[in-house]
Amino acid sequence: MAVDYSNIKVIGFDADDTLWVNETYFREAEEEVGKLLSHYETPNKIDQELFKMEIKNLPTYGYGVKGFILSMIELAIELSNGTVSNTVLSKMLDIGKEMINKPIELLDGVPQVLKTLTKDYRLIVATKGDLLDQERKLEKSGLIDYFHHIEVLSEKQEVNYTKLLKHLDIKPAEFLMIGNSLKSDILPLINIGARAIHVPFHTTWEHEKVTKNDTNGLNFETVKSITEITSILG
Amino acid sequence: MAVDYSNIKVIGFDADDTLWVNETYFREAEEEVGKLLSHYETPNKIDQELFKMEIKNLPTYGYGVKGFILSMIELAIELSNGTVSNTVLSKMLDIGKEMINKPIELLDGVPQVLKTLTKDYRLIVATKGDLLDQERKLEKSGLIDYFHHIEVLSEKQEVNYTKLLKHLDIKPAEFLMIGNSLKSDILPLINIGARAIHVPFHTTWEHEKVTKNDTNGLNFETVKSITEITSILG
Repeated sequence: MAVDYSNIKVIGFDADDTLWVNETYFREAEEEVGKLLSHYETPNKIDQELFKMEIKNLPTYGYGVKGFILSMIELAIELSNGTVSNTVLSKMLDIGKEMINKPIELLDGVPQVLKTLTKDYRLIVATKGDLLDQERKLEKSGLIDYFHHIEVLSEKQEVNYTKLLKHLDIKPAEFLMIGNSLKSDILPLINIGARAIHVPFHTTWEHEKVTKNDTNGLNFETVKSITEITSILG
Repeated sequence: MAVDYSNIKVIGFDADDTLWVNETYFREAEEEVGKLLSHYETPNKIDQELFKMEIKNLPTYGYGVKGFILSMIELAIELSNGTVSNTVLSKMLDIGKEMINKPIELLDGVPQVLKTLTKDYRLIVATKGDLLDQERKLEKSGLIDYFHHIEVLSEKQEVNYTKLLKHLDIKPAEFLMIGNSLKSDILPLINIGARAIHVPFHTTWEHEKVTKNDTNGLNFETVKSITEITSILG
């Protein structure tokens, strides 16, 4: 079934791993943690336990680097039975600060696509995570002038997108979301009658994964590169 | 000079210490940290050093509890010359989680004022800090239905408010901000031609303090209680 994009007024872009690299840095940080705690557990076990800790703390800390580091510290204390050194914990704080201050690595073709689309649509950034982090990344990215504004959502579920549309004062069929996460950027939009285009990134956080069944029968397109979007929209 | 409120369309409310108690909890947490680190320094010195650490980390962490706890941990490691125990650090993580999960204590008269104002104005929450924290507090407060939406600003400076007005698509004279911080909720608004009413809270974070000179000649009103706002607006 062909998707009807003819009513689109506003296009929302996910930021992390859609406009620029992000998940890669979390994977690298997890690898460093594995090394820092290698005294206590195997890298595989540490990975699993860190994921569990993050999910346990998600309702309290939400998304973003700061909660990630707090979970990392809590895990280090737990796995070491309260014996982990201040040196290791200091390094964890440093890993967090480095992550926050990483330069922005844009994904291929992003500025060109935005430059074209901004002529015909109102573009916004719709992202999860920490407001300050995301604003800073947008500033550093050089992309800020293409966007009307940035919307940071605490979660990307149907209810959050419904609020967003109310706030933008548009109907679902007038909104197109573009992002790399099926769970966060695609499924909830299709479910509320909006449009969504999936641009996969090579790495997906465990928490963002969905099964093939979840997408069965849902009417959305997947592209290999964000550069394909302009021709899809005509 | 009488302030002209006749064009107001949107009223922005600061949240922490304007709608509900917040700063008090940070002061209590600082007191607990003082006790936890009393082995290394006097409470007064710890207070000063924690403030310095927070300000040093503000560009990286921004506002909110998570950055506060990360700064607290960094300080503990530093003040103890890398010898602070895992038990103390665990307690700091607990203090943070407790702060995030505190029940909401509304300030006097808040629901009544919002109930009255929401009939004639579009009300929004305009707050600094962590989006998830602020959304959660708003949910818990029972006030959410009075507000059109929540705007979380990474900073509350003139540029951030100018962006907000652009986003709301209104002129400065159509916006009234209500809050407890002269620095964040009042001065930048007056400077961009918007309206602002100051409702002081008994405790002000050092970082939010301004000198008498900063407010000289600026045209805004101060009220003792938020309940006075309805009669001011007529």
